[in-house]
Amino acid sequence: MSSPLLNELIDALRCLPGVGAKTAQRMAFHVLERDRAGARRLAEKLASAMERIGNCTRCRTFSDTPVCTVCSSSTRDPQTLCIVETPADQLAIDQATGFRGRYFVLLGRLSPLDGIGPQELGLDLLANRLAEGEVRELIIATNATVEGEATAHLLAQIARQSGVRATRLAHGVPLGGELEFVDRGTLAHAFGGRQDL
Amino acid sequence: MSSPLLNELIDALRCLPGVGAKTAQRMAFHVLERDRAGARRLAEKLASAMERIGNCTRCRTFSDTPVCTVCSSSTRDPQTLCIVETPADQLAIDQATGFRGRYFVLLGRLSPLDGIGPQELGLDLLANRLAEGEVRELIIATNATVEGEATAHLLAQIARQSGVRATRLAHGVPLGGELEFVDRGTLAHAFGGRQDL
Repeated sequence: MSSPLLNELIDALRCLPGVGAKTAQRMAFHVLERDRAGARRLAEKLASAMERIGNCTRCRTFSDTPVCTVCSSSTRDPQTLCIVETPADQLAIDQATGFRGRYFVLLGRLSPLDGIGPQELGLDLLANRLAEGEVRELIIATNATVEGEATAHLLAQIARQSGVRATRLAHGVPLGGELEFVDRGTLAHAFGGRQDL
Repeated sequence: MSSPLLNELIDALRCLPGVGAKTAQRMAFHVLERDRAGARRLAEKLASAMERIGNCTRCRTFSDTPVCTVCSSSTRDPQTLCIVETPADQLAIDQATGFRGRYFVLLGRLSPLDGIGPQELGLDLLANRLAEGEVRELIIATNATVEGEATAHLLAQIARQSGVRATRLAHGVPLGGELEFVDRGTLAHAFGGRQDL
């Protein structure tokens, strides 16, 4: 390339997920040719986000303040607590459902092989929170994967110990899904969990 | 979202080409969770690239120095000059072919409707360069689009005026292309331009 700085920029862009050499090149050329102001703004926002975004001390989600806006909001119901694996899951639930309770973010899932146990998931923090006595229902929204299910199992135990009701997201046929193309496990689950009309 | 800074970061990421709301979200979560060092580096490189990358005064490509490394390289043949529309085209040709001459980057193509004429493409700079008398062959590598062809036509005129040989990239069936699926125009061009074996 005619510019070492450009090479470095292309290389640095590859830290973004799904961005390979070719896409990074296209991105670099695009911002240089057409959107230098946008790129300058991105540089600024990236730097300040990396500097100032930490984790909420109550729910562990990303936050610029010690307690995040969701945890400190007075309009949210403190009696229901939804447990999710990642901040992205929290956002998905908040946007899709009308849920107006609070969240607790595990920042992972039980995975002993990777050294991720109850400690890493902040389950002691969760137990303390349940011990406060305010939470009435724990909505367990971990992923429907093997590790997510194992985590859900452990969370249900913790809820039982604290005398809190634990619920789990329903499994079944996705909306718009054609039975022919739904995988066996899901279909068996949906069949077993059929509901009265 | 639980963090205003995070919202701003997601919004800023959308200046990148092909990045919509959903991808920007995924990118922001990814770097926050897994690669803060990479993101810090990206912020730095973006800022310095926007600050310091300008255009080469001889060939108009992106460069951190007044004259780019290709133009100032003594190992490149000054007698052949390849004209491309964008720095990305320059890179593609440099990587794919063994071309070791110099380049001239138009940073666009003739497009009167968008107000892009000979002035905007730096054709006066090119004419001066040809007048120096060093260049023997002008390889015209503009795109095979209507505007690219119009630009090529004008470039050929300029070359003729300076008494320089002008050549154009060959049109034809792409390597690995099946005739059945090649578009009509390309096929007609390839048929008309058939060569002796």
